[in-house]
Amino acid sequence: MDDLAPELTRILDGRWGDVRRRLRAHDDVSRFAPPAEPLSMEEYRSYTTRQLLALTSEDFASAGLAKGMGGTGDFGASVTAFEMLGHGDLSLLVKAGVQFGLFGGALANLGTQRHHTAYVPGMLDGTLLGCFAMTETGHGSNVQHLETTATHDPTTDELVIHSPTPGAEKNYIGNAARDGRMAAVFAQLVTGDGESHGVHCVLVPIRDTSGRPMPGVTIGDDGAKGGLPGVDNGTLSFDHVRVPRWNLLNRYGDIAADGTYTSPIDNASRRFFTMLGTLVRGRVSVAGGAGAATRSALTLATRYALHRRQFAAPGSDEELTLMSYRAHQRKLLPAIARSYALMLAQNELVEMMHEVADHDGAAPEERQRELEARAAGIKVAATRHATDTIQMCREACGGAGYMAENRLTTLKADTDVFTTFEGDNTVLLQLVAKGLLTEFQETFEDNSPLAMIAFASRFTASSILEKTPAAGLISKLMSRAPSSDEDGAERHRGRQVALFVDREKHLLEGVALRLSKAAKAEPADAFRIYNNAQDHLLTAADAHIDRVLLEALCAAVEECKDGPVKELLDDVTDLFALSTIERHRAWYLEHGRLTPVHSKAVIHDVGVLCKDLAPHARTLVDAFAIPDAWLGAPGLLEPLPTELPTGTPAAAAASA
Amino acid sequence: MDDLAPELTRILDGRWGDVRRRLRAHDDVSRFAPPAEPLSMEEYRSYTTRQLLALTSEDFASAGLAKGMGGTGDFGASVTAFEMLGHGDLSLLVKAGVQFGLFGGALANLGTQRHHTAYVPGMLDGTLLGCFAMTETGHGSNVQHLETTATHDPTTDELVIHSPTPGAEKNYIGNAARDGRMAAVFAQLVTGDGESHGVHCVLVPIRDTSGRPMPGVTIGDDGAKGGLPGVDNGTLSFDHVRVPRWNLLNRYGDIAADGTYTSPIDNASRRFFTMLGTLVRGRVSVAGGAGAATRSALTLATRYALHRRQFAAPGSDEELTLMSYRAHQRKLLPAIARSYALMLAQNELVEMMHEVADHDGAAPEERQRELEARAAGIKVAATRHATDTIQMCREACGGAGYMAENRLTTLKADTDVFTTFEGDNTVLLQLVAKGLLTEFQETFEDNSPLAMIAFASRFTASSILEKTPAAGLISKLMSRAPSSDEDGAERHRGRQVALFVDREKHLLEGVALRLSKAAKAEPADAFRIYNNAQDHLLTAADAHIDRVLLEALCAAVEECKDGPVKELLDDVTDLFALSTIERHRAWYLEHGRLTPVHSKAVIHDVGVLCKDLAPHARTLVDAFAIPDAWLGAPGLLEPLPTELPTGTPAAAAASA
Repeated sequence: MDDLAPELTRILDGRWGDVRRRLRAHDDVSRFAPPAEPLSMEEYRSYTTRQLLALTSEDFASAGLAKGMGGTGDFGASVTAFEMLGHGDLSLLVKAGVQFGLFGGALANLGTQRHHTAYVPGMLDGTLLGCFAMTETGHGSNVQHLETTATHDPTTDELVIHSPTPGAEKNYIGNAARDGRMAAVFAQLVTGDGESHGVHCVLVPIRDTSGRPMPGVTIGDDGAKGGLPGVDNGTLSFDHVRVPRWNLLNRYGDIAADGTYTSPIDNASRRFFTMLGTLVRGRVSVAGGAGAATRSALTLATRYALHRRQFAAPGSDEELTLMSYRAHQRKLLPAIARSYALMLAQNELVEMMHEVADHDGAAPEERQRELEARAAGIKVAATRHATDTIQMCREACGGAGYMAENRLTTLKADTDVFTTFEGDNTVLLQLVAKGLLTEFQETFEDNSPLAMIAFASRFTASSILEKTPAAGLISKLMSRAPSSDEDGAERHRGRQVALFVDREKHLLEGVALRLSKAAKAEPADAFRIYNNAQDHLLTAADAHIDRVLLEALCAAVEECKDGPVKELLDDVTDLFALSTIERHRAWYLEHGRLTPVHSKAVIHDVGVLCKDLAPHARTLVDAFAIPDAWLGAPGLLEPLPTELPTGTPAAAAASA
Repeated sequence: MDDLAPELTRILDGRWGDVRRRLRAHDDVSRFAPPAEPLSMEEYRSYTTRQLLALTSEDFASAGLAKGMGGTGDFGASVTAFEMLGHGDLSLLVKAGVQFGLFGGALANLGTQRHHTAYVPGMLDGTLLGCFAMTETGHGSNVQHLETTATHDPTTDELVIHSPTPGAEKNYIGNAARDGRMAAVFAQLVTGDGESHGVHCVLVPIRDTSGRPMPGVTIGDDGAKGGLPGVDNGTLSFDHVRVPRWNLLNRYGDIAADGTYTSPIDNASRRFFTMLGTLVRGRVSVAGGAGAATRSALTLATRYALHRRQFAAPGSDEELTLMSYRAHQRKLLPAIARSYALMLAQNELVEMMHEVADHDGAAPEERQRELEARAAGIKVAATRHATDTIQMCREACGGAGYMAENRLTTLKADTDVFTTFEGDNTVLLQLVAKGLLTEFQETFEDNSPLAMIAFASRFTASSILEKTPAAGLISKLMSRAPSSDEDGAERHRGRQVALFVDREKHLLEGVALRLSKAAKAEPADAFRIYNNAQDHLLTAADAHIDRVLLEALCAAVEECKDGPVKELLDDVTDLFALSTIERHRAWYLEHGRLTPVHSKAVIHDVGVLCKDLAPHARTLVDAFAIPDAWLGAPGLLEPLPTELPTGTPAAAAASA
C-alpha cells in the first residue's frame, strides 16, 4: 500500500492548511457533529443554538473581521474553518453562516463605526443573535426590486419599515423563527421628499429581551424544510415599524439629520452592487461547505465500494467488490477528480477573497468584480457537484445508503438548498457570463436581460486568457500541444487545455454576437433574441468554470516535485480533463474540434483511467483527511465481520 | 384557453381509467394523504399503520388476487389503484406494497391452497401483518447467494431457520420493526441429507400475539431513513428457529414427510428465477408509484412557473414569469414529455402483467420473460426519471421548493430509494440487456458476468423489432422516413424512430460481439472483457427502453383522431424524441448517424418545441388530472395576492 495520501493532503489543504489540521485534531469532535440521536425539529433547533454558542469560544468568527472591528483580520483562515464545518453538522454550518457571515457581514461591511462598536461584540459572543432579511416571498433573485420600504420621517427623524404587499414579506430568513433579536433588513430607502434611493440595509429589533415580537413585527415560522432541521427559518413582516435613523447601515448611503440623502457612490445601481459585493463571503463559504460535504460523501461511498461484494467473476466463487466493476468506477472516480479540482479552485478563491478583504474596501474595483464573478462560478460548480455527487453516492451504497445513520441522505437533504440559496445557480451563471462579456470592467447593473444585452454588444474576446492565476502556465502547456489528429493526443495536457480554452472562447464569441443583435432590435424582439440565446449563455459560463477548475489542477501538478504523488495527481488531472471533454464531446464533434475517432478515444481513455485509478481510490479519498469520527456511518466505513460474535446462542450452537 | 386536458387525460388514463376516476372522486381524500402536521417517526409509523388498515376497506388488494384465492382477479385494476396512491402519501404506498404486494404476493404465488386458506383472509383484512424477508445485510442484488438456511430436520419434521453470519441478517425489511407478525423468509433450503436445493420461501412467525419477538428471532429497527418515515423497516435474524414443514411455500419445491425434495422444475436456477418471476408485480408497482410522484412534482413546478415572476423584459416594467425563460422551459417541458411517454408505457406494461397474471402461471414462458424484462426496464426508466425530475422541480421552485409544506422535498426523499430497491437499477439494466441478447428465450440463469457472457455469445440481432406491441406501426413509420440529409428531417416521425431503432440495434450488436470474445477467453480475461464492455451493455439497455417509450407515444398519437389534441400530442412526441436524440447526439455523431449540421438542428428544434409548448404547459399538466387537494403545496399552486388582507392595521394605514 502506497502512502501518498499525506502529501496529497498537504497539496489539497492549501494556504490555510494549519486551520484544517487544527480542527481535525480538535479534542472535542462533538463540537461540530450532528446530534447522536434523531431529534424533533424543536429539539434540533435548540441543539443547534447551543452548538452555535459553543462555537463562539473558537476564533472562527473574529478571524473574519478586520482588526479595526475587534477581529484578527485572518479572513482566509475564517472561511477555511467554516469550510471544515461542512464535514460536520450542516445545520450548524448554516446557522453560523447566518449569524457571523450574513448578519455579521452586513454589520461589518455595510455599517460604520457606531454600529461596529454597539453590536459587533454581541454578534461575536452570541448575546445578539441576528437575521439577514433580504429575500422576500415575492422577490428572490431580483433583489433590486424588493418591495419593503424604509421611509425617513423627518418629523421624528425615524425610519419607518414597512411591508406593503403580501409578497414583500421577508421569507426563508435564518434565525427568524426562534432566536433572532435583530434583523439587518434590506429595503428601498425613501427620503422624506418621497424620493427612492434604492436598496439599503437597516437594523431592526424584531424581538424584545423576553423573546416576544416587537410591536408591528409579525414573525412566522417556515416549519419543516427539505433539510437543515436545526436552522429556524421564518418570515418577517413589518407594519410601519419605527427605528431611529441611526439604525441605517450607512457606509454606502446616509441620511443627514435634515433628511438629505448622500452617498459616496452617485450611481444608484452601482451603489447597490457595491453593497452586495461586500457580502461575497457568503457565497465563498457556501461553495466551501458544499465541497466539504461532497468529499464526506465520496469518502463514504468509496470506502463502501472497496469492501462491499456483489456477484462472482467467471471461474471464481469469491464475489467481487463494487469497485471492481467498470460502471461503479465510472461513477466514483470522475467525481473524485472533480472534487480535487474544486478543492484547489476553492483554495484559490479563498486567497482572492483574502487579498480583497485585506484592502478593506480599497481593493482595485476590477479585483473586486473578478472576485464576485469567480465566487459565483465556483459556488455554482461546487453546489451542482454536491447535489449530483451526493445523490450518486447514496445510490452507489444501495439500501445501506438510504439509512439515516449512514449520513448520505442527511448530507443530500442538508446541502440540497445550496444550489438555489446565496444566489440561484441559474442567475449566478448569468453573472459569470456578464463578467466575461465585460471583462469585469463594468458590472454595476442588474442581471436583467436588458443589462446582459447591453454588455454583450460591447464585447471583445481579446483577453479571456489573461484573467486567471495560471495564465502563464496555460500558455506554456498549450504551446506544447500536439497536433489534434495525432494518436493519443487527448492524453496530452496541452491538448486538453486547448480544448477547454477553445470551447469557452468560441461559446463566448458566439453568444456575444447573438446578443449584440438584440442591442439593435426593438424591445420585443430584443427579449426574443436574448431568450433564444439563454442556454448558449449559460453554457458559456459553464465552460469558463470548467477551465478555471482545470487550471487549478494543472497548477497543482506543476508545483509537485517529480515522483509518485505527481504521477497520481497527473492521472487525476487527466481524468478530470477527459471526463469533462467526454461530457461535452457532442459540442466538440459539432464544431469540428474532435473527430469521431478521437471522440471515441476519449471515452476509451476515461474508462482506462478509471480502471487504473481504482486501486488508488482509497488513497485519493484518504487525502481528504476526514477523521472517521466525523464521518460516522458505521454501516459503510468497514466491512461486516464474517463470524457471529462469540457468546451468542447461535455462535455456541454453530461451534458445538 | 383551450380545453384539451380532459381528452388528453382519457388517453393517458388507459384501460383502467375508471379506477383512476373513481379514486380522484373519492369522498375522503385524507384516506391517501400525508399527515397534515409534521409527526415524529413513531407517530408517523402509527399513522401509516392506521391508514393501511383503513385501506383494507377498499378493493385494491383483493383485486390483485385470483378468484380462486378469494380475490376478484382484476390485476390491472389493482396495480393501477396502487399507482394512484403514488400521488398521496408514499409511506402508505410502500407499506401497502409490502403487505399486499410482497407478503401477499409471496403467499399467493409461492404458496399453495393450504397457505391461501389459512392466511390470505388475514393478509387482506390486516389482521395478519407480514414481512417479505429477502434482502440480507450482506446480499442485496445477488439473491441467489443469500446465506440464511432452512434445514429440514427429519426427526421432528420441522424446518430450522438460521442466520449463520452477521451478513445473513435480513435487512431493510418493511413491517419488521413495529408491525409484522409473520415473515416470508427467503432461505437456502437444505434437506436432511445435507443437500441444498437453492432459495425457497418459508413462513416464519416473528412476533407473538402480544407483539413480543418469537423465541430465537432477533428484531432490529433500521430507525430513520432518507424518507418513507411511516414505514417501519428493520432487521430480522434467526437462531435455529423451528417451524413446521407445512410452512414451506411449496408451489415450486416441496419436501415430503419422508424428507425427500421434489419440484415441478428440475433445474435449480430455473426454479429460482421462476419463483422470482411471479413477484414481478412489485417492480411494476414501484414504476407506477414513481411515475405518479413525478407527475405531482411536475404539476407543482409548472403551476409555480406560470405565476412566479422574476426580472423584467427590455422595454417593460412587468416582470416575466419563470416559464417565459428558455432555460426554464428547457427544464420542465422535456421532463413533461418523458412523463407522458412513461405513463403510456406503464399502461402497456400493466396490460402485459394483467394478461400474464390472468393465465395463473400457465402463460407462455416467453411472455413471462418479456414481462420481466419490460418491468425491469420501465422500473429503471421511471425511477431514474423520478429522482432526476423531482430534484429539478425542487430547484425550479427555489426557496419555496425547499419548504416541506410544498411537498417537493418529501416527494424527493420518499422516492429516492426507488432507484435501488425492488432491484437496483444498474442490476436491472443488465437483466434488460440479457433479455435482449437472448430474445427472451432463456433467462433462467443468474445476473453474473459469466451468465451474461454466455448469452451474448449466442446472440443474433435478427428480430429486435418484432418484440414490441407497436411493431407494425413502427415499420410503417420508418418506411416513410425521409433521407437523412434532407432539411428538417429530424422533425419527421419515421426518421426519429429510425434513429432510436438504429442506435439500439447497433449498440446491441456491438456488445454481443465484444462479449462473445469473452466466451472463448480464459476466466481472468473473460471478466476483463466483460468489464470493459459493461458501460456499453448498460447503454444498450437504456437505448432499448427509450425506444419502448417512443413507441408508446407513437401508438397513442396514431390512435388519436385528427384535431388539436392529436396535434398537441404530436408535438409532445416530437419533444420526447428530439430531446432524447439531443441527449445522445454525441453517439449519433460518432457513428455517422447525424452530421454536425443536423445535430445542431436537433438542439435548435428542441428549443423551438419548448417555446411552442410553453403556452400549453398548464394543459399538459392538467391532463395528469391530480386533484388540487392531493397536491397540497399552498405556496406553489396559486400566485400570492397582490394586496394585504383588509382589516389588518397595515392595510388600514395603506388605505388611509
